[in-house]
Amino acid sequence: MKIVIAPDSFKESMTALEVCEAAERGLKKTFPGAEIVKVPVADGGEGTVQALVDATNGRMTKLSVTGPLGQPADAEYGWLGDGKTAVIEMASASGLHLVPPERRNPLITTSAGTGDLIRDAVKKGAEHIIIGIGGSATNDGGMGMARALGALFLDDQKKEIGHGGGALAELAEIDVSGLMPELSNVKIEVACDVDNPLTGPNGASAIFGPQKGATAESVAILDRNLAHFASFLKQTTGADVAQTKGAGAAGGLGAGLMAFLNAELKSGVDIVLNTVNLKQHMSDADLVITGEGRIDGQTIHGKTPAGVSKLAKEHGIPVIALAGSIGEGYESVYEAGIGAVFSIVPGIVTLGEALRKGPQYVEQTMANIGHILKLKQ
Amino acid sequence: MKIVIAPDSFKESMTALEVCEAAERGLKKTFPGAEIVKVPVADGGEGTVQALVDATNGRMTKLSVTGPLGQPADAEYGWLGDGKTAVIEMASASGLHLVPPERRNPLITTSAGTGDLIRDAVKKGAEHIIIGIGGSATNDGGMGMARALGALFLDDQKKEIGHGGGALAELAEIDVSGLMPELSNVKIEVACDVDNPLTGPNGASAIFGPQKGATAESVAILDRNLAHFASFLKQTTGADVAQTKGAGAAGGLGAGLMAFLNAELKSGVDIVLNTVNLKQHMSDADLVITGEGRIDGQTIHGKTPAGVSKLAKEHGIPVIALAGSIGEGYESVYEAGIGAVFSIVPGIVTLGEALRKGPQYVEQTMANIGHILKLKQ
Repeated sequence: MKIVIAPDSFKESMTALEVCEAAERGLKKTFPGAEIVKVPVADGGEGTVQALVDATNGRMTKLSVTGPLGQPADAEYGWLGDGKTAVIEMASASGLHLVPPERRNPLITTSAGTGDLIRDAVKKGAEHIIIGIGGSATNDGGMGMARALGALFLDDQKKEIGHGGGALAELAEIDVSGLMPELSNVKIEVACDVDNPLTGPNGASAIFGPQKGATAESVAILDRNLAHFASFLKQTTGADVAQTKGAGAAGGLGAGLMAFLNAELKSGVDIVLNTVNLKQHMSDADLVITGEGRIDGQTIHGKTPAGVSKLAKEHGIPVIALAGSIGEGYESVYEAGIGAVFSIVPGIVTLGEALRKGPQYVEQTMANIGHILKLKQ
Repeated sequence: MKIVIAPDSFKESMTALEVCEAAERGLKKTFPGAEIVKVPVADGGEGTVQALVDATNGRMTKLSVTGPLGQPADAEYGWLGDGKTAVIEMASASGLHLVPPERRNPLITTSAGTGDLIRDAVKKGAEHIIIGIGGSATNDGGMGMARALGALFLDDQKKEIGHGGGALAELAEIDVSGLMPELSNVKIEVACDVDNPLTGPNGASAIFGPQKGATAESVAILDRNLAHFASFLKQTTGADVAQTKGAGAAGGLGAGLMAFLNAELKSGVDIVLNTVNLKQHMSDADLVITGEGRIDGQTIHGKTPAGVSKLAKEHGIPVIALAGSIGEGYESVYEAGIGAVFSIVPGIVTLGEALRKGPQYVEQTMANIGHILKLKQ
């Protein structure tokens, strides 16, 4: 019997690898002889770097970057086991969590740190970079990122403009001649599960600005500035990204990555599953276990368990999912190919206890599922 | 496929029948064609009457009795579908819950109401009476019960003594000549899962007196009085029950039932499973579902899921258990023959929500278990 365990992390409780290990312990109680393949996965959101590093036996690397307010910040990114693929979470360098709530202001925050991480990876020989862009503090269209890689953003006096989405108003020219030449040989994939265009009522500023600290007034300024920025992007790079799906992700970093780095925006979970070769691991498997902290009506919209089960369905392999919590509308996952969903929570417990005892709960639940599978053998 | 659903109630949430019905709804989603046999069961504790009535298509009957403080109280008992078997919970007539906390005092509380229920059943032609004796407010050795059935308890002036464990000090003679003659034709079984003798350090007064409101001083009096009572029991009925296992159950009602009514004390769950013919229902079943509000290290000590799985094990039928809450030491149920245990709780929820949504949770969990069973077919 071959069982593939491919869960996401359970946020605030376990990394995806820890979920794999706990599930394996539970399964081994009833199937001591089973071939168990652990593949920690993720959907491009928080935990993606860790999952990919864990899945490929890679490593993390740390460096000091420019934080969202221009201050130095400690950030990290991962190298996969192949030594050629770097995986970056924008939030590590330019995340909202790096800015104290009272100082959150996307008029001034910069995506420069994300550029610092990309530069470091490129310098060290990355041939492939995967970028997760959730949780950003910025609304600068990726200006900071591109500047860190060598682009110049000039005003009508040919002087460099300042940082942040507010400064884009002064933009009169973009000079990309200084962009790192190595970039043209690097395949850049962006894990992006939002469809928002760069500007307008569904754009970066209107939809994501407020949660980054933008007032109604600054949302209007930011939106206008991104439109202004987009016209220069088109003029300079030829890329007309203002209305492209996903251009508005991460405060317009989506647009910047596409225009400056020729990046491809893809479903996060598809990038991850492809990177860890889940399809290959699944061949001749008898059962797939997946899971996530919460499984509900949102799960089928690009979350890990849905991506995993979609693949398994193609191979005709049954899927069982574990969740910390099963919420409203969860039944839709059955259509995605998940055969059964179990909460790992053993009764009325506090959130704190549940988060702390996650590994024990996963092990117990998996052991019980194993008992049922055993019954039928 | 034949599936037997034989759970206990989930206290404060669902009767055993409601659990059966919810589990059936869940199973029908994956096994629409299965033969499903619903057998609500219980272990002799709270919910036993309801489970037996539900399991046999019986009915409840109400009457006014003498409450534990001598006041009138509304009580009820059940008739099983055969019309010949009555099932009584002592707590309905003589329960601690009928006495406000500040008035709890086993020196004065009486088991008379339990006698009233027995008398009513006997008068109406019961050939078999099952009595559950948990939750009593009394410590009178069953004097009140026997008095309601015609026995006289006299002092040395041949006058009737008062009610309660305190009055037993004045006992000088028991006259059983007036006991209802019909009683000799009635088989009386008592669901009793405690081993306590009538008197001494493990006796009724010492162990159960305090939770009924006895002070240290009154425990001493009650214990002395029950010893005094036992000597008259022996003298009058020939039954030497002071040290018999279970004589101390329900404030010595165990002793009284044995001595006056020739009752047999048995494991509650065994009485129930035998009464509902679970063994017969199980023949040619492929799977048994059981469950209880809580499954933990205590479960194997006479609780319903353990009794059900013991029977199933004899027939070689796999058992899956559901629980509202899975607690410390629950793994011991595997040895009792339970193959797998699942909590029905879908995540972090309040106790109130969990109790209210019990049927929905059972249905969901059972559907998911069904999905797994289906996988393997």
